[in-house]
Amino acid sequence: MIIEDLSQKYEDYIIELRRYFHTYPELSWQEKNTSLKIKEELDKLKIPYISVIGTGIIATIEGNKNGPVIGLRADMDALDILEENDVEYASKNTGVMHACGHDGHVAMLLGAGRILNELKEYLNGTVKLIFQPAEEIIEGAKKIIKMDELKDLSAIYAIHLWAGLESGKISLESGPRMASADKFILKVHGKGGHGASPHQGIDAIVAASSIVLSLQTVASREVDPLEPVVISIGKLTAGDKYNVIAKEALIEGTTRCFNKDIRERLPKIIERIALNTAKTYRADVELDYQYGTPPTINDTTCSKIAYDSAANLFGENSILQMTKVTGGEDFAMYLEKIPGAFIFLGVRNEAKEIVYPHHHEKFNIDESVLKKGAALMTQIALDHLTRN
Amino acid sequence: MIIEDLSQKYEDYIIELRRYFHTYPELSWQEKNTSLKIKEELDKLKIPYISVIGTGIIATIEGNKNGPVIGLRADMDALDILEENDVEYASKNTGVMHACGHDGHVAMLLGAGRILNELKEYLNGTVKLIFQPAEEIIEGAKKIIKMDELKDLSAIYAIHLWAGLESGKISLESGPRMASADKFILKVHGKGGHGASPHQGIDAIVAASSIVLSLQTVASREVDPLEPVVISIGKLTAGDKYNVIAKEALIEGTTRCFNKDIRERLPKIIERIALNTAKTYRADVELDYQYGTPPTINDTTCSKIAYDSAANLFGENSILQMTKVTGGEDFAMYLEKIPGAFIFLGVRNEAKEIVYPHHHEKFNIDESVLKKGAALMTQIALDHLTRN
Amino acid sequence: MIIEDLSQKYEDYIIELRRYFHTYPELSWQEKNTSLKIKEELDKLKIPYISVIGTGIIATIEGNKNGPVIGLRADMDALDILEENDVEYASKNTGVMHACGHDGHVAMLLGAGRILNELKEYLNGTVKLIFQPAEEIIEGAKKIIKMDELKDLSAIYAIHLWAGLESGKISLESGPRMASADKFILKVHGKGGHGASPHQGIDAIVAASSIVLSLQTVASREVDPLEPVVISIGKLTAGDKYNVIAKEALIEGTTRCFNKDIRERLPKIIERIALNTAKTYRADVELDYQYGTPPTINDTTCSKIAYDSAANLFGENSILQMTKVTGGEDFAMYLEKIPGAFIFLGVRNEAKEIVYPHHHEKFNIDESVLKKGAALMTQIALDHLTRN
Amino acid sequence: MIIEDLSQKYEDYIIELRRYFHTYPELSWQEKNTSLKIKEELDKLKIPYISVIGTGIIATIEGNKNGPVIGLRADMDALDILEENDVEYASKNTGVMHACGHDGHVAMLLGAGRILNELKEYLNGTVKLIFQPAEEIIEGAKKIIKMDELKDLSAIYAIHLWAGLESGKISLESGPRMASADKFILKVHGKGGHGASPHQGIDAIVAASSIVLSLQTVASREVDPLEPVVISIGKLTAGDKYNVIAKEALIEGTTRCFNKDIRERLPKIIERIALNTAKTYRADVELDYQYGTPPTINDTTCSKIAYDSAANLFGENSILQMTKVTGGEDFAMYLEKIPGAFIFLGVRNEAKEIVYPHHHEKFNIDESVLKKGAALMTQIALDHLTRN
Repeated sequence: MIIEDLSQKYEDYIIELRRYFHTYPELSWQEKNTSLKIKEELDKLKIPYISVIGTGIIATIEGNKNGPVIGLRADMDALDILEENDVEYASKNTGVMHACGHDGHVAMLLGAGRILNELKEYLNGTVKLIFQPAEEIIEGAKKIIKMDELKDLSAIYAIHLWAGLESGKISLESGPRMASADKFILKVHGKGGHGASPHQGIDAIVAASSIVLSLQTVASREVDPLEPVVISIGKLTAGDKYNVIAKEALIEGTTRCFNKDIRERLPKIIERIALNTAKTYRADVELDYQYGTPPTINDTTCSKIAYDSAANLFGENSILQMTKVTGGEDFAMYLEKIPGAFIFLGVRNEAKEIVYPHHHEKFNIDESVLKKGAALMTQIALDHLTRN
Repeated sequence: MIIEDLSQKYEDYIIELRRYFHTYPELSWQEKNTSLKIKEELDKLKIPYISVIGTGIIATIEGNKNGPVIGLRADMDALDILEENDVEYASKNTGVMHACGHDGHVAMLLGAGRILNELKEYLNGTVKLIFQPAEEIIEGAKKIIKMDELKDLSAIYAIHLWAGLESGKISLESGPRMASADKFILKVHGKGGHGASPHQGIDAIVAASSIVLSLQTVASREVDPLEPVVISIGKLTAGDKYNVIAKEALIEGTTRCFNKDIRERLPKIIERIALNTAKTYRADVELDYQYGTPPTINDTTCSKIAYDSAANLFGENSILQMTKVTGGEDFAMYLEKIPGAFIFLGVRNEAKEIVYPHHHEKFNIDESVLKKGAALMTQIALDHLTRN
Repeated sequence: MIIEDLSQKYEDYIIELRRYFHTYPELSWQEKNTSLKIKEELDKLKIPYISVIGTGIIATIEGNKNGPVIGLRADMDALDILEENDVEYASKNTGVMHACGHDGHVAMLLGAGRILNELKEYLNGTVKLIFQPAEEIIEGAKKIIKMDELKDLSAIYAIHLWAGLESGKISLESGPRMASADKFILKVHGKGGHGASPHQGIDAIVAASSIVLSLQTVASREVDPLEPVVISIGKLTAGDKYNVIAKEALIEGTTRCFNKDIRERLPKIIERIALNTAKTYRADVELDYQYGTPPTINDTTCSKIAYDSAANLFGENSILQMTKVTGGEDFAMYLEKIPGAFIFLGVRNEAKEIVYPHHHEKFNIDESVLKKGAALMTQIALDHLTRN
Repeated sequence: MIIEDLSQKYEDYIIELRRYFHTYPELSWQEKNTSLKIKEELDKLKIPYISVIGTGIIATIEGNKNGPVIGLRADMDALDILEENDVEYASKNTGVMHACGHDGHVAMLLGAGRILNELKEYLNGTVKLIFQPAEEIIEGAKKIIKMDELKDLSAIYAIHLWAGLESGKISLESGPRMASADKFILKVHGKGGHGASPHQGIDAIVAASSIVLSLQTVASREVDPLEPVVISIGKLTAGDKYNVIAKEALIEGTTRCFNKDIRERLPKIIERIALNTAKTYRADVELDYQYGTPPTINDTTCSKIAYDSAANLFGENSILQMTKVTGGEDFAMYLEKIPGAFIFLGVRNEAKEIVYPHHHEKFNIDESVLKKGAALMTQIALDHLTRN
């Protein structure tokens, strides 16, 4: 019960921190003040740390006994959204807002750090606190995971505060939890000409339109219906003038899936469909497939450890099964290399009018869950290192 | 005026013949009785002839003066249509009907033969009367044109009685008059499988459907809009069971155009579209393109000769400009090799309730035009040989 | 351990029965001999029963203590498949084969009945053994569920022997396990006409092809990507002749999903897409949507009871998580009205060359699992009635 | 021969004028200097005139005898093209160029005016010289045709210098000569949403793409293949971001045809196809159809008069049959109300390297045809008024 007591003791500390970060949100790669504040706190707590990849920080808490090293991660960046919440601690950086909960993530990790630091004697190994920039643009994890300082991690955990779950409820199933999120661009090459003589040109708009429709069959015919896959084209621009055959069309889209094999097949599938469709109309096409983040897949053992930790702290009833999420998350990149678990912690509280989705101008969190998050991180760290 | 007089004199003869043929219609390649009757008449008229390609006949009228050889052609076959006309001379071969006017064509050619035979002395050359079987299935011309007996033709003419023109009106423009008519078959190869697991099969129905739609762009995008082109798919069959992925689809269609270059491009265009579309969906396809008849293209000089002959006989007012016809006609195959003209002679007469289109169960002709057709053929033969 | 002992004791009995049914397979609604044999066995066991809906049987085992009534169900029918197994007990009804395991289902249920009958004193309620005809054509459950004799059921269970699982492994997750399976027919009405004059007709083939493609967007755009949905068109027939515009097209397909709300939306979605697409091309369409079977959805409590029963009998390791199945199962119709669970019991045994899928000419089962199935049914019945 | 003599006499005058206008080209509605120069010349020739619709001019030559009134029209505007010809009289208004021959049209009409003015005594009626602005943007004719001063016209003629014909060759068939040219805009309304959850939005890109493809069937299935029709979509823009469902798509296109009935049907056809296709995908659409210019259809009698005039002046051999042109021309708006003829006069001369198409940076004309154009206009005016 000592963890719960400590998390209760430091609740105000954690909430204060969260409100501070909420008041001063910073965009991806610009988390300078956030980074300074974190270092200030770590200094106060006497937890050693290093700076990495610009605004990133890796702090280290060594236990009294030797043992493996695990990571706890919080992402730090905010979004270019104009906050509409009428709260004391509302954003003072106009047009920038912590509308995804990363303010809470950082605060919880500092809270967990503070508690873990006091419980060092029970720690059968080392915990690294990873403060990661630039999650929203899927760049931070990709960079930080290459650092030597993370080479020794044998497991990694993160909590995401989640608007889709009731306050305090937890979801931590093993297997795929969030989707891969990639980008693709198709440049369709036709041949210009007068609109009155279509046969003298090659109509890039007809070819592009047909590609858009052919791509619909990936979900309907080509991928196992039990495996969710999304191909969405968000942007299509072609041609300059109403009466001139368009010589080029630009298609921009995103793909989502939860399965590494399917993700690997997608560029080939898109290329085959686009190229053959283009050739159907005498046109040509180039595919630029830009890998974003892989699916976020929880390790079975780590999920089980986290399950037991959560059940231990808050009872089995606090743990729910939650459907997968088609959004992407760059924590996936850690999980590609290191076993771990990505845990959703509910922040929705209708009584407090905290009901808005992530990235909404009125997104907010039920702050009473922050101490729970800090406690859960602590418990998982202790349990994981004890088991191993 | 001698030609008009003779055609008037033999009007009853021609009408009687036409009614005889109408009463005893015969399907393509089965024109045995028709052939016998023609020979009987030629024997009576003492016009020498030979039998060719089964039921076909080539009769020869040599003029008194040496000169070139020209052909006049009539097609002989009827259709598998159940006649609904309530006339004395209605078909006695149930289910077979002269619903396209070939009965009249044969009668007019016998009439023209009779007149020409009497006017031999004015004939500066030779006229061959060609009674051709199997026009309706686009086979007769293809065969007969290879005969040695037709190698010496320097021009050829034919008249088609036409429901789309008022009785006695004539259309004989130079250039394309009737369309090419080809057939194509596309066999789409997919892969069977359970309908509940589409990803394990390759859906031939989706591929075939997409081919059908892609082919619509030939007329809209790929061929000069000033050049009429038709690609119609009349039949599509695919799959055996509602819940099994179809492993094969069969597409059967026809093409029409008036331009030899476009006709030559069509198989390549169809193949490119079908193959690339099939590959879009992982399927494959085979094209079987069966050439039928080319476009029927009138020679400028022969059209002009026929124009003058018609104007001479019936006045310029009898000659109309008529739109091209997207139907096909195997006379086109003579015109590929020999200059000539294909002439439409109107048979529509609303007062006589002769208003039904070709191939209709109530198709009929205004018989008063038969003598005109015989006269026109005669006149053209004389004029053509005189000019040359 | 008494249940395991008894199931061991009766193993030969159960296997013999299964082989008997395998030797004399009967098609849906024709399970006469099967029915007679079951009654013969029930008579021997002195278990009372009634005949229902033709070949169906409901037998009743009353426990010594009062309590609720639950059902155990086995389906009885075979398939029109020519068996290719070279075994002593191979089908003697040529062209009919137990290629789905129903022979084993009946044998296991008789085995469970025999054991339960001996353990009556421990039974806190009543167990009804339901021998159901015509599962393969999705008709038996629909009919039998309406019987008064099943009105008192408070729960129902069934086991399906499953080629996709290793011998003895069990899958019994709560929630959707098998898909709904419906049929739909779309009659597309166009207007006939000559293929050379497409504008005078309304091309049913173009309209039907476009409908096929539009329907692909249901999975890709209209239904939550996390909810599997399948729309497969297995058959498409249109038109009679290659050069005539098709006046009608017939589309036949199936739908699959795991969610009742989505299933309810599907006919409306298909109708909206088909009708608007048809109108795009001046055509019309009629939808005939034939409801087959709903998704098979296991009740959470019943799944949990079955889980505990299975864990108790065979250990937790025997229980696996298995992916949902896009096939349909008419047990779903019981589960629409009564809580229950549909349990997969593995029969695959590579060492014994038992590797063929359901409905395959060489499908077979590892008979060593039959006693396990009988034991599991017995255990579940006892456990369920004890809990309540 | 007097007309030929006079046109020869004034050849230098006409060429000089043409070069002047070529040197000082002006865009549509900005033909101020052009207008001043024309007036200056009319003043010199003592031909009375009035100014209309800004830069337009109507000059009147009354014959000595009473009779009907006919019009001769020249368009005055240039294009925003940077001239690349290396000639003395190249454009001095950088970026503006007479690349369509209107400079020659004005010069020829002034030449014809000069000759007609001298031949007044032979003129059985009145000739109005119409100098029309803003043809290139299809606005001038629409405005000028409403003037009271043109209410008395009983016929109207214009010559277009034509790069597609050999120098001096003339084409003046009756019937449709140039296409209608209209613009249409389709605004497709969907519903935005995250690209990862397509079912929560309505994908305007899929709907728009399908509309593009459905519209291809207008030419292939819905309009008589003998009637050329073009629907070209030149511009398609939809969506803002690759991973966001596009809530709107904008389609801009043009239609061309040669038949008034078909032109009238086109907006209805486009609306039906777009609306039903949009509804197929739950989207909506608005059509904004902007009538441009109707097909340019020559009157049979006026064509015949012009034919005879041309044959008389230059011989029948100078007159060719030329294919219709899918481009549009606002002279069509006169011909909607007044019988007349639009005549093509060839300017192509390979020996002089005059081979570039209209609207090309190197477009030029064989100036030796200018006197022929002036002569032809004069002859037609005299002949037309003499006949009536």
